[in-house]
Amino acid sequence: MSRIRIISAADVKALFTLPMAIEAVERAYLQKHTKQGGVWPLVFHEFDPGHADLDIKSGNLDAEGIFGLKLVSWFGANPDKGLPALYGTSLICDLATGTPKALLNAGPVTDLRTGAAGAIGAKYLARKDSRELVMVGCGELSPYLVAATLLALPQLRRVTLVNPHHPEKAMQKLSAVTEKVQALLAASGTVCQATLQAETDVEAAVRQADVILTATQSRAPLIRRQWVKPGTHISCVGADMSGKQEIDEAILADGRVFGDDADQCFSVGECETAAKLGLLPALCAEIGAVIAGEAPGRTDEQEITVFDSTGIALQDLASAAVILRKAEAEGVGLVTEL
Amino acid sequence: MSRIRIISAADVKALFTLPMAIEAVERAYLQKHTKQGGVWPLVFHEFDPGHADLDIKSGNLDAEGIFGLKLVSWFGANPDKGLPALYGTSLICDLATGTPKALLNAGPVTDLRTGAAGAIGAKYLARKDSRELVMVGCGELSPYLVAATLLALPQLRRVTLVNPHHPEKAMQKLSAVTEKVQALLAASGTVCQATLQAETDVEAAVRQADVILTATQSRAPLIRRQWVKPGTHISCVGADMSGKQEIDEAILADGRVFGDDADQCFSVGECETAAKLGLLPALCAEIGAVIAGEAPGRTDEQEITVFDSTGIALQDLASAAVILRKAEAEGVGLVTEL
Repeated sequence: MSRIRIISAADVKALFTLPMAIEAVERAYLQKHTKQGGVWPLVFHEFDPGHADLDIKSGNLDAEGIFGLKLVSWFGANPDKGLPALYGTSLICDLATGTPKALLNAGPVTDLRTGAAGAIGAKYLARKDSRELVMVGCGELSPYLVAATLLALPQLRRVTLVNPHHPEKAMQKLSAVTEKVQALLAASGTVCQATLQAETDVEAAVRQADVILTATQSRAPLIRRQWVKPGTHISCVGADMSGKQEIDEAILADGRVFGDDADQCFSVGECETAAKLGLLPALCAEIGAVIAGEAPGRTDEQEITVFDSTGIALQDLASAAVILRKAEAEGVGLVTEL
Repeated sequence: MSRIRIISAADVKALFTLPMAIEAVERAYLQKHTKQGGVWPLVFHEFDPGHADLDIKSGNLDAEGIFGLKLVSWFGANPDKGLPALYGTSLICDLATGTPKALLNAGPVTDLRTGAAGAIGAKYLARKDSRELVMVGCGELSPYLVAATLLALPQLRRVTLVNPHHPEKAMQKLSAVTEKVQALLAASGTVCQATLQAETDVEAAVRQADVILTATQSRAPLIRRQWVKPGTHISCVGADMSGKQEIDEAILADGRVFGDDADQCFSVGECETAAKLGLLPALCAEIGAVIAGEAPGRTDEQEITVFDSTGIALQDLASAAVILRKAEAEGVGLVTEL
């Protein structure tokens, strides 16, 4: 018998902001680097390839005194039934005793922590004089990625939304994405200073970009090497299972490539294809080493840098830890006997 | 947003009985055999080898329309802090949509489903004229194994409790185990017909056994080949991680060996050592094939049979499914927004 705190989606939305997510994820990367956190083997299962799958990510975060897991399922046909395609649920336990502490609806956690991940790549690797941000993909994650990156790089002046598979959707989604970005920045205590626009010509948008964020379900490169100008930074967020790919392997071959977890980047991330083709033997470093100041990030203004964000359990654990602390302090969530 | 049912330890104890567990686990083995259920990769982590570890078992059970996971942690120092060493928590989701359906305290589920597993091995593999049951180990699981086996084989007349590492404990625990066995059988609508006794001489007890159940933390064989008489059945329940072993490899070499999951039996189960020594190339069959009538179990009265129960996610899923159905029907558990 023990008591567990149930933290619903509404609770998470009320408690968790993008600045909290950026701080938590940055700390998670650092703690992975300093071995204060561990990532356990990923469980991945396809119920119906391309239509329904799930993963279970788990690990321990020593500095927060917790371990736990997040189960995320994706059922592509759910929206037709009036249900969300994605469900995410986190179970958090005490690292000293194993006692279950909290069950969280991790759906809104995932959006914010994934947005934060892309932004942290840009924060540490993009040129300081970056002005032009291009968002590739206009799905659910796009406003979170844009808002987090605007928070991390306030010098950005313009955001161009593109959608390679259905270019017209970028225009259709522009006002909804803009509103959501403004709402996320307002909830973070700031105001959107950048202009948002949509573009149907992906190449034209990419050719003027300083920072590119990719978050699509693509299984083939969407961005060609010759479109990318010197000095560009790209945070790749879409590739999270074997076979997914968003950018030309030649970009990885020519660029300085960083990632959240080297093993995962090469097994299920953007690095997979380039590595199989023999174009990318290794990461320059994991991002945690850059944050710690122990590995160089960008070394000159002409380099192309890439951050491969595959998503690691520690992002979720670090996010859950700050949400749980705030929930306990503010008495949010339902505490019940388990 | 979705609604989830929280089913506490007290709820599980009120809802779940040994006959339900035996039926559920038998169905789980059968569904594994007929590929109506799948077991996903096991996550195992040692926080502090020999002192604290955990595993995450997950899978899908098509006939029940669910998938899910069970996280079990073991912190050996907890009892000194007034806490249980083991915590088990199950998360159950809808197989058609991924929607989380229930969170269960799996502690009491584990006791009953593990007791049921050992009993099912005896039910399908022991001689029909078995009279003498020997329980090796007198820890928390022992009354569940004894009671379930008495339910599955009502012809058993005597139960002898032995405890190889601390032989005197068998005597000390006898009355508590007897009371618990009687209570479990009473909750199952039956009365204990067998006599329970304790014995400090393990060899003497084993030499007269028809059925042996082992549930210890041993890492070395406790039962020698020459002690085991022809026709004996042994259900090995203790070995659930690499390095654990309860019986002489020679018993496995000479006997007909069955298991719940072939891969798991050879990687973390009782079969591991015998296989490494080249004494056991394969199982005769998984128990599901025997239950389905597609593989022979015992083929004569002189054979020694062994069932290696490593514990599979489907046992937990099948148990959770019947608990959840009963909880929904009876309105048990707390339903809350997640």
